[in-house]
Amino acid sequence: MASDTEQPLRPDIAAAATRVFSELGYHGASMQDVADAVGIRKASLYHHVRKKEDLLFAIHDGLIDELIADTLAIVSSSQSPSDKLRDILRSTMRFVARNREGVTVFLHERAAVSGERWDAIVAKRNFYESMVRGIIADGVSSGRFIDVSPEIAARGLLAMANWGYTWFRSDGPLSADEVADIFATIALRGLEPR
Amino acid sequence: MASDTEQPLRPDIAAAATRVFSELGYHGASMQDVADAVGIRKASLYHHVRKKEDLLFAIHDGLIDELIADTLAIVSSSQSPSDKLRDILRSTMRFVARNREGVTVFLHERAAVSGERWDAIVAKRNFYESMVRGIIADGVSSGRFIDVSPEIAARGLLAMANWGYTWFRSDGPLSADEVADIFATIALRGLEPR
Repeated sequence: MASDTEQPLRPDIAAAATRVFSELGYHGASMQDVADAVGIRKASLYHHVRKKEDLLFAIHDGLIDELIADTLAIVSSSQSPSDKLRDILRSTMRFVARNREGVTVFLHERAAVSGERWDAIVAKRNFYESMVRGIIADGVSSGRFIDVSPEIAARGLLAMANWGYTWFRSDGPLSADEVADIFATIALRGLEPR
Repeated sequence: MASDTEQPLRPDIAAAATRVFSELGYHGASMQDVADAVGIRKASLYHHVRKKEDLLFAIHDGLIDELIADTLAIVSSSQSPSDKLRDILRSTMRFVARNREGVTVFLHERAAVSGERWDAIVAKRNFYESMVRGIIADGVSSGRFIDVSPEIAARGLLAMANWGYTWFRSDGPLSADEVADIFATIALRGLEPR
């Protein structure tokens, strides 16, 4: 039954659509390609989603929810701002490593998600960024960090990890945590007063 | 006259193609769209390039050449590693601010550049990254920076500026140099021994 509600997409369908969009590009991929990748008939795929854009939205929405869940757990802990930022860098690098194709689709095809649904994604993304900004603002106001723009510092720190989607390989010489710890060393020495 | 040599593309054609690819996506854009944006007939456009991929390659190649020229000037100066890195962050943020549409096309459509031409782009990109890595390696070996992986540190630093393509606005509250200086403050405090 076609549905316009925001029920989570069946995980194997989301995974297959992510792979297909990553390989062929969103515009180059057809519903038939996705159905083939899932191993179901196209008619069956239409029982889960009404149109291709639904798949793209579900991928975006699932990724941002995952990132928010990881980040909420860190923000709500009783750790120091420095320890929270280190955990944010680790969780973001792990997220990027685990969802490389999904992040690529998210970043490259977001123009294809339109209207209210895109607004909902933007609102979630802003919430995610505001949590990271908040950690830095806490650190600045409590004197644990130097006086720096929490907004720009948060963008810079998240960029270090996010950019991993362009180069990080899970089978490379360093794990996601090892890379994140190098970034954390630089960023925290950079933010903490001497 | 159609040409396969690597002569620079006429700047107004490169600018129009960048704008069209950024708006419609490379696959969604036609040679007619580009000709319309330049204000010439499609037949005239074919006097400059043989096919659409030539335009994409010319955009990529022009951008990476610009980045290399900026970086070479900094690397070959007699400044300290810290001052060089600050200048790299400034020049990269300026590059991103100036070429936002081009960087978007570069990152999102690179899969469409194929074969030897892509290898040539990769070789130039690697050369660019190796210059930045070299500055950090010099700083580490001379004791001006802490002992950190120059490769990962370079990726993190460049990420801070590169990621600007997703959010930086030339008409925003901070200039490219002001943003770069915040990143440089964090990164250099992070790299310099206490």
